[in-house]
Amino acid sequence: MPDPHTLDPSGALVERVSLEPLAAGPLDGLSFTVKDNIDIAGRKTSYGNPTWRDRHHAPRYNALCVDQLLAAGAHCVGKVVADEFTYSLDGENPFFGTPRNAKAPDRIPGGSSSGSASSVANGLCDFSIGTDSGGSIRVPASLCGVWGMRPSLHRISEAGVLPFMPSVSTVGAVTARFEHLTSVIRVLLRSNMRPPVPLQRILVLSDAMDIADAPVRIAAEAALNQVSSRTGLDLQPISFAQIVGQDLPLSDCNENALRVLQSLEFQNTVGNWIESNAPEIGMSFSMAYENVRQLDRNQVIQCLDTCERYFEAIQALMTSGTVICFPTTPTIAPLKNSLKSMETVGDFYGRTMSITAFSGVGRLPEISAPLLTVETCPVGLSFAAGHYQDEFLLSAVQEMLGQQAP
Amino acid sequence: MPDPHTLDPSGALVERVSLEPLAAGPLDGLSFTVKDNIDIAGRKTSYGNPTWRDRHHAPRYNALCVDQLLAAGAHCVGKVVADEFTYSLDGENPFFGTPRNAKAPDRIPGGSSSGSASSVANGLCDFSIGTDSGGSIRVPASLCGVWGMRPSLHRISEAGVLPFMPSVSTVGAVTARFEHLTSVIRVLLRSNMRPPVPLQRILVLSDAMDIADAPVRIAAEAALNQVSSRTGLDLQPISFAQIVGQDLPLSDCNENALRVLQSLEFQNTVGNWIESNAPEIGMSFSMAYENVRQLDRNQVIQCLDTCERYFEAIQALMTSGTVICFPTTPTIAPLKNSLKSMETVGDFYGRTMSITAFSGVGRLPEISAPLLTVETCPVGLSFAAGHYQDEFLLSAVQEMLGQQAP
Repeated sequence: MPDPHTLDPSGALVERVSLEPLAAGPLDGLSFTVKDNIDIAGRKTSYGNPTWRDRHHAPRYNALCVDQLLAAGAHCVGKVVADEFTYSLDGENPFFGTPRNAKAPDRIPGGSSSGSASSVANGLCDFSIGTDSGGSIRVPASLCGVWGMRPSLHRISEAGVLPFMPSVSTVGAVTARFEHLTSVIRVLLRSNMRPPVPLQRILVLSDAMDIADAPVRIAAEAALNQVSSRTGLDLQPISFAQIVGQDLPLSDCNENALRVLQSLEFQNTVGNWIESNAPEIGMSFSMAYENVRQLDRNQVIQCLDTCERYFEAIQALMTSGTVICFPTTPTIAPLKNSLKSMETVGDFYGRTMSITAFSGVGRLPEISAPLLTVETCPVGLSFAAGHYQDEFLLSAVQEMLGQQAP
Repeated sequence: MPDPHTLDPSGALVERVSLEPLAAGPLDGLSFTVKDNIDIAGRKTSYGNPTWRDRHHAPRYNALCVDQLLAAGAHCVGKVVADEFTYSLDGENPFFGTPRNAKAPDRIPGGSSSGSASSVANGLCDFSIGTDSGGSIRVPASLCGVWGMRPSLHRISEAGVLPFMPSVSTVGAVTARFEHLTSVIRVLLRSNMRPPVPLQRILVLSDAMDIADAPVRIAAEAALNQVSSRTGLDLQPISFAQIVGQDLPLSDCNENALRVLQSLEFQNTVGNWIESNAPEIGMSFSMAYENVRQLDRNQVIQCLDTCERYFEAIQALMTSGTVICFPTTPTIAPLKNSLKSMETVGDFYGRTMSITAFSGVGRLPEISAPLLTVETCPVGLSFAAGHYQDEFLLSAVQEMLGQQAP
């Protein structure tokens, strides 16, 4: 097998593949790549770690979502890099490399669906499927300047996707064009195309605006003012404290809810395997995993109670016809190799996950739109709707941004 | 280790364990067993198959649901038999034995949570946790005469539960007493105890009544008439054809929707492992797996479209305040060793899954209540509510049956 990197200057490919469509359908003519935690029949799935790859057999079956896409007319062109065990937001894999951020080549692509965003942004394919638990589709979509959607929790089958965090993980897509996002997500959601409710209310998550770097916030405000003009709807700021009825910062959504649940569930999936198999692991993952390992499982009741309380409060807010907006990430992509100190890592992850955890805890569908530019680098503007309101979100974003329908 | 069967005339135990509570809580003083596809730290999880057990390490962590129960005050007393790969409804495991059906000892206990129902019915514990994808909690609860609940799809974490059918599998509970079912499910759901909406409408799934054996139907009608008298609400019969607006029998819910999705997802989880590991398997499982193996994955789009269409139709029906009732299983437990011919197996599975698939496709919470007796054998009467309406269902069943609140 030739080194895929010699044929692929993006560095996104783990392996070139060529899977023809199983039938004609709404995705005719579209090419896609698959994140390396999602099965392609007859090829090993690495999970971004060489020991995992070496100790597991190649699957006999494609993941269900891969077969859905092939049966809808798309063709698969490659398996792409994932962060190690998909447990990262930076996109720097010590074993499989750092996929190129096409629009900011001296910067990281973001992860863990780094290869998905990079392969789309570098023009290797029309779309890519990835997974998102704490931001793993939205963050690289934001930092690479492409569309990304994390659908509602548990609306897309995870059969053939490696077990990660069962209460949090979601299959989703990255695309270069909005109309492809709509087509791909509709296939994956098995959507019935019923006409969705009209857009009635645009909220702005004020804490997320405050967390963002000033230039990101200013760019987001300008873009949202255009949305307001186009739709004729006022922007209504709302804080996390107002949503949950307690004087709490948005970061609580991550620190006392999503992050703890993620760590508990990761102990049960990858953690069990690591403890029995002592794999070779990279430095960044090693540090992250040590935090997971030390988590006290006695936190389970409090963490789940908090998650459920926040979910119910967000559910009550996100009534039919409502969209909530915020910058996908608080910053443009950090420079390569800049996330080395505890301080820089802590700032990037802390602020980013304070924002991404909102849709995670809310089980919301969220679309990151490649609308903002700061210092010539892309950054995403996110739109989220209520749990299971994915079809409404797609039509609302189309209306808000004046995008072309597929 | 002593053979657990010498100490356990029920034959439900795979292994005695003794896990003390992590804290005091609402389950203080209650003992429970754990189905052998749910992790207990430091003990191998067998999945009902000896090759699986031998080729996997013992987990380091308890499943999240086990830790929830321990942290809520319960203590764990054993790991109990599951059907092979949990892919059966009969409860006859060729490697781990057939747990005793306490109320009908010459009959099968039902599966795949056979040990869960048997350990409760034989008085080994107050409750047991199991899993349900196509009826695996509801069927043994019905046939053994105990309470069983399959909660709404994806409301309880599956971290530490062996991967089976990600779009279908559910963690749930079996109990001897209704008040324990309420307490246990509330802990697992992280329920906020908000007062649920009042019961407003009682539907009866007429096709399920017609599918049942005449004595089961007659007993169910008598019990439902009592429910109607107690609540002052009329029983409103409704057919599957009325629900989906097409002239289709209830069996379509299984044959063209749930069964196909289950087989596709089982290929991705256990199927991949079997193809690579060629385990020792029993005769019944071997026949069932051959059907899975031969399923054509080109059915994926049609199957998922059908599942989604039925889900949406059931969702539209099951508005707030609505319960739908039907016999959990169409028959009392078959005699041991009676499911040997293609005809007897086909009749038992075909009729049973025509009924159980309804809540599966609807993602509904369903409670099987041990209310009926036919030929001195128990059979369950089921009550289901809308997706995510688990708390309402518990309070509605309490009202309908005049049960004691915890």
